[in-house]
Amino acid sequence: MRFSIETRLLYRFQEPCEVLLLVEPASTDTQTVIHERLTAPAGCRLARFEDPLSGERRAVFDAAGDVEIGYAAEVELAAVDHDFSGRPAGRVRDLPASVLEHLRPSRYCPSDRLERLVRREFGHLEGGEKAGAIMDFVGRNLTYEAGVSTCASGALDTLADGAGVCRDYAHLAIALCRAADIPARAVSAYAWRLDPPDMHAVVEVYLDGRWWLADPTRLAPVEGLVRVATGRDAADIAFMHIFGKAELLEQSFRVDRRERLAAVA
Amino acid sequence: MRFSIETRLLYRFQEPCEVLLLVEPASTDTQTVIHERLTAPAGCRLARFEDPLSGERRAVFDAAGDVEIGYAAEVELAAVDHDFSGRPAGRVRDLPASVLEHLRPSRYCPSDRLERLVRREFGHLEGGEKAGAIMDFVGRNLTYEAGVSTCASGALDTLADGAGVCRDYAHLAIALCRAADIPARAVSAYAWRLDPPDMHAVVEVYLDGRWWLADPTRLAPVEGLVRVATGRDAADIAFMHIFGKAELLEQSFRVDRRERLAAVA
Amino acid sequence: MRFSIETRLLYRFQEPCEVLLLVEPASTDTQTVIHERLTAPAGCRLARFEDPLSGERRAVFDAAGDVEIGYAAEVELAAVDHDFSGRPAGRVRDLPASVLEHLRPSRYCPSDRLERLVRREFGHLEGGEKAGAIMDFVGRNLTYEAGVSTCASGALDTLADGAGVCRDYAHLAIALCRAADIPARAVSAYAWRLDPPDMHAVVEVYLDGRWWLADPTRLAPVEGLVRVATGRDAADIAFMHIFGKAELLEQSFRVDRRERLAAVA
Amino acid sequence: MRFSIETRLLYRFQEPCEVLLLVEPASTDTQTVIHERLTAPAGCRLARFEDPLSGERRAVFDAAGDVEIGYAAEVELAAVDHDFSGRPAGRVRDLPASVLEHLRPSRYCPSDRLERLVRREFGHLEGGEKAGAIMDFVGRNLTYEAGVSTCASGALDTLADGAGVCRDYAHLAIALCRAADIPARAVSAYAWRLDPPDMHAVVEVYLDGRWWLADPTRLAPVEGLVRVATGRDAADIAFMHIFGKAELLEQSFRVDRRERLAAVA
Repeated sequence: MRFSIETRLLYRFQEPCEVLLLVEPASTDTQTVIHERLTAPAGCRLARFEDPLSGERRAVFDAAGDVEIGYAAEVELAAVDHDFSGRPAGRVRDLPASVLEHLRPSRYCPSDRLERLVRREFGHLEGGEKAGAIMDFVGRNLTYEAGVSTCASGALDTLADGAGVCRDYAHLAIALCRAADIPARAVSAYAWRLDPPDMHAVVEVYLDGRWWLADPTRLAPVEGLVRVATGRDAADIAFMHIFGKAELLEQSFRVDRRERLAAVA
Repeated sequence: MRFSIETRLLYRFQEPCEVLLLVEPASTDTQTVIHERLTAPAGCRLARFEDPLSGERRAVFDAAGDVEIGYAAEVELAAVDHDFSGRPAGRVRDLPASVLEHLRPSRYCPSDRLERLVRREFGHLEGGEKAGAIMDFVGRNLTYEAGVSTCASGALDTLADGAGVCRDYAHLAIALCRAADIPARAVSAYAWRLDPPDMHAVVEVYLDGRWWLADPTRLAPVEGLVRVATGRDAADIAFMHIFGKAELLEQSFRVDRRERLAAVA
Repeated sequence: MRFSIETRLLYRFQEPCEVLLLVEPASTDTQTVIHERLTAPAGCRLARFEDPLSGERRAVFDAAGDVEIGYAAEVELAAVDHDFSGRPAGRVRDLPASVLEHLRPSRYCPSDRLERLVRREFGHLEGGEKAGAIMDFVGRNLTYEAGVSTCASGALDTLADGAGVCRDYAHLAIALCRAADIPARAVSAYAWRLDPPDMHAVVEVYLDGRWWLADPTRLAPVEGLVRVATGRDAADIAFMHIFGKAELLEQSFRVDRRERLAAVA
Repeated sequence: MRFSIETRLLYRFQEPCEVLLLVEPASTDTQTVIHERLTAPAGCRLARFEDPLSGERRAVFDAAGDVEIGYAAEVELAAVDHDFSGRPAGRVRDLPASVLEHLRPSRYCPSDRLERLVRREFGHLEGGEKAGAIMDFVGRNLTYEAGVSTCASGALDTLADGAGVCRDYAHLAIALCRAADIPARAVSAYAWRLDPPDMHAVVEVYLDGRWWLADPTRLAPVEGLVRVATGRDAADIAFMHIFGKAELLEQSFRVDRRERLAAVA
């Protein structure tokens, strides 16, 4: 499937500072950026980087005053199997170091605190069934509602609150998976059919030797997720990290499906 | 029913300090202390106080070096109805100030954080049925296990841990009741048939104009609870509050049922 | 000194519910309500209560739709000594039960967690000097700023944040005093010369057999504080506790000094 | 300097499980493992891995019943400049992705909560001076004491407690550095002259294009630290991660300086 993406960010910076920007889709085996355009005022000295291993990309710019960033792209997603039911969890000895780190607790996913809950609720399940039951548990126990969580809320807060937004759903799902010894990480993505459109936070679990996407909010089809950044939790994948103070003036995200035109003779 | 109680506390105090002691059963309409003996070394200058309203009693002593405190009593409990099913919750306007305070969050019972959980789980219930469902929820979601919680653990920790001891059960039950607008408080009690014998922490809920005892651990019959102290949570009802440093050397609690001898002609 | 007070509260209640209102100044030895007027729509069935011991007052009303509450009063404050320097802390054995409870940790004042900090920073001080040093410490380590704390923030959060509003200042000061074995409690008050005018949260410490007012924010003179409610922390003294959902439409508080006219022959 | 290392770990595993072991010194430009021996019972199927980029090593084994692991090595450390005073902090645009992640909050280092404290205390400093002042602050505000923190304690707990062990010192130092926009990470190390001998947790800060070691506890000379693992906080660098339940029976660590014999003619 092919998607067109449009992002517009307008912020007011009270003092000159650097900004880290994670809005460009990653270049991976199953995700190809056909064409794209990242625009920023000239004074921003925008620098772009691509991680050779993950294909993830970041930009850094110097911000001062009102700054408008625009990004537009067309991205082709290959068909991927998203059904991890029946997939076994790996043995620890078979996990690469880059996966091992996603077994550990992180700022918003204190999995060390959830081991008992996981044993009680999911102790009888294994692998893909366990991960699936965790996604269901999160969906069943949370209500999607803005204004309950803050940027300091972690998975334990969300569990008590019983409500949150996509990042809270992701954090609770990740923390529970890790507590169950299933590597799990956070992914930011453009999400087709997410309403209202926004940068989405979803989850990946590692089973049977590879990562599998899942969206515990069930608000957008997994097939339409265009991956941007990957990390331990929201702290790693925020689309903008401002090393100073700023005020949001306007921002918009848009994802549309592009029907490929049939080649006409 | 009549119970005999025996308490022995042996502590080593590294530095001279005052100690607040809550081990004497309260004198109430339904609980009569037949006879008792509180012993402490002479140098302790033990002072005893009784609260005229609640009938609760406290002692304060000066501690230094090794101190052994002994307490023995015989207490008669009147038969009390402990079945609060069907009892309505009161209106706020009908609650005395001394009850109102037990609607508020406290150190270990942050009820303000559990309002959503309560609405989702118990929103369809009222009064005694709601309180009863909360006790069942606590019993069902927790495993009785020492060493999981610490003296800093509150109800949110216990909810995540899924395990704890009597004080943790009490804290979670109290926090949930308050979040459901049912006044709830903590009670320390000698507990007949509690095994191993120890000072027990249980719960009281306010319904239909009076307080009702409940033990979410289900480890001892409510009929055999000899009330000592009442408060917002464990911070208020600890049997010993040491204003200094001390080391526990030995301590024991014992409760036995006394069969009243039939008068023989 | 005599003060005139005016309060206006306009709220929208999404569903019928009860509301507890703490806006009327207490009647105490040193604070006399000369005349007053509390107004509410007739359907509210406003009920007023006065605690015979503390002289504190509360009102409860039934709320539905848009409700406007008005309160106006004239209050005379006797001259009171507010300088607690040199005053000794009491012995535990001399503290009444109603004071003892203010040595314990509460929802927003987890004093059990601050004992080391208190020993390190204030261990060399006693009584009034210790309480004074704690007030200075709070003032020096916090910046008055709205939007940093939330209604879930406690003294440990405030200590880390280094910023907060009056209730956060009060919570940190209270928690530190209790950790230093000085009874401390929260007081809500109309505060003359507080700018902008608002219901203020301040502190009382118990030294030398009585309570002493202190304002760690230093934003208003202690002499101009008209006491409303007293409790363990903000949970007890909020001027409105809504047992349901509501939206603030408008609210205002006003305190003016009334010059007493000289009697002319 | 050359050091000989000896480690012995004896654990009882209640159920068969995998164990991740981080006890082998890394092979880096400045640290050479001259010879070594890692021993485990045959049934453990011990597998060893080395990360090609960092030179860090890990082992995984299958554990059941009583298992004794032994490790002995001789390691040569090159002389390294450890004085980062005067070194400038890098610009964000110049930081590699592997460094950027160490600007973010982690499980035990919630740097997002400490930005105000950092601005107030260290706002006037830059680069190496700021990092140095943070190390001093941590040393000055904490007392080294076991039994205060638990494995769930993070930097905010440590700040309130004013006490902890090496991992707590490291966490607070790391959290403060990150809050000051200085990348910081946790390092586990064999520490010459640490008394009693134990696996040590220290800190690295990134300044002027490279990482610099620092030990906020000041308990062992930085020159004698033999690096094992590196990560965001203690969650990443624990010397043993047990994917099951086990009981420690015995364990010992030993580091000695080896005098190189002068070549005699």
